[in-house]
Amino acid sequence: MAEKKAFASKFIAAPGKKFSLAEHDPRDDSAFDDKDKTKEQLLKDAAAIDGLQDRLFAEGKRALLVVLQGIDCSGKDGTVRAVFNASGPLGVTVKSFGVPSEVERAHDYLWRVHQACPAKGYIGVFNRSHYEDVLVVRVEKLAAADAIERRYDEINAFEKLVANSGTRILKFMLHVSKEEQAARLQERVDDPTKQWKFKAGDLATRAKWADYMAAYETAISRCSTEHAPWHIIPADRNWARNAAIARIVREALEEMNPQYPLPKDWDPKAVKIL
Amino acid sequence: MAEKKAFASKFIAAPGKKFSLAEHDPRDDSAFDDKDKTKEQLLKDAAAIDGLQDRLFAEGKRALLVVLQGIDCSGKDGTVRAVFNASGPLGVTVKSFGVPSEVERAHDYLWRVHQACPAKGYIGVFNRSHYEDVLVVRVEKLAAADAIERRYDEINAFEKLVANSGTRILKFMLHVSKEEQAARLQERVDDPTKQWKFKAGDLATRAKWADYMAAYETAISRCSTEHAPWHIIPADRNWARNAAIARIVREALEEMNPQYPLPKDWDPKAVKIL
Repeated sequence: MAEKKAFASKFIAAPGKKFSLAEHDPRDDSAFDDKDKTKEQLLKDAAAIDGLQDRLFAEGKRALLVVLQGIDCSGKDGTVRAVFNASGPLGVTVKSFGVPSEVERAHDYLWRVHQACPAKGYIGVFNRSHYEDVLVVRVEKLAAADAIERRYDEINAFEKLVANSGTRILKFMLHVSKEEQAARLQERVDDPTKQWKFKAGDLATRAKWADYMAAYETAISRCSTEHAPWHIIPADRNWARNAAIARIVREALEEMNPQYPLPKDWDPKAVKIL
Repeated sequence: MAEKKAFASKFIAAPGKKFSLAEHDPRDDSAFDDKDKTKEQLLKDAAAIDGLQDRLFAEGKRALLVVLQGIDCSGKDGTVRAVFNASGPLGVTVKSFGVPSEVERAHDYLWRVHQACPAKGYIGVFNRSHYEDVLVVRVEKLAAADAIERRYDEINAFEKLVANSGTRILKFMLHVSKEEQAARLQERVDDPTKQWKFKAGDLATRAKWADYMAAYETAISRCSTEHAPWHIIPADRNWARNAAIARIVREALEEMNPQYPLPKDWDPKAVKIL
């Protein structure tokens, strides 16, 4: 277990410290020995997550929230598939946060997020999240500067509430390089089965790469906490990205160690099925 | 395709006809040649469903609603895993309908059901459904007889609305024998990892087996329609149950034939990624 915790700690942005992306190489795969072995381990980890989720559901007291953030083409969808398809849609919910609807905009920015938090027993995945409210909103100046400035503390307080109520929170920044994004965007443009994912606005966002990275650094610096740590995941290599996240999720669930409950108001030996 | 449609038709309860469960053997596996080949085919069908769901999502115009109904231990959860884990939680949502909450009971019985219908692009699975409102509610007399009597027409009208709006509806009754249920309940009682699924009330429900089967016959007789057919799935053998449902779902999606959209307001050849 001590060795295992050391694994997640390789990726955690230290709470309370200024965080810099420059220290993180998107192609870093030093956490893994060998690509083939790592892919095998991913399958084992995904299967273990499935078994642990069953126990989490049976116990019915706690939940796990996985936040996936990353720029276009950083591999959020692929991560969900690699890490959570073994568990499947029965015990895992995925909420994608797009541009807020009119109803959502009529409420505070955490209103729709709170509604999407996983119920006890479930793993909830956020595909983008409330962090968009200090990322795109900051870069594009979609809210007043002082309101955005308040959000970091508000988010920490909100996540503290959710964590205190029995939900373990793991946040992942999928860190891709600008070069790798270019290659992946080009693939979307060229592949008729992927063109639907491409929007002209994607290039406008890409043009503001430095602004987005600065916004990520601020968000991670101010919102990586003991109760909701940010993990920085090198994401240029899909296999390393998937394996890292699967292993961190597995470890967190093992640490939570959910238990099948004992029969409470009935005795298995006394049951007669007629 | 003609041959394929013949497959689903083996299981459909003919619309407008009186339906009798006595004509359906829960152990019937005559739709399949060979158990091992069928299991291989299931994997292929589940993978094909995944690919079709991607197209459904890309197209963004239609949805698929899969209703799973069956008595305790009929294998609803196992069906979700076998048929939809390949697609995963990204494109498939599962809604389990339990005893209505206080808020839900303050609305009409279809209110919570409507909210859970899948959005365009998604496959939505109902694990139990509004049919509980003419099954357990009828057997246990939880609503006035004339109100229950009205529900069959109300359900048909509701499903018609949903179908008219672009959602294909497939309803499956997982048909297990009383003997097989006994064996599965006993397994739940004996296995410490399954005891949490067992409730004393399960035996009370089992004691009313004939009443429940009569309620199913009425619901299926009155609510198997062209726009939302009931399929009767022999469910004593898990492999035959999973394979039948996967193949029917695959065929329906193939018939819907969702298409990747062409680029609308941009030209792939003109895009330059800087």
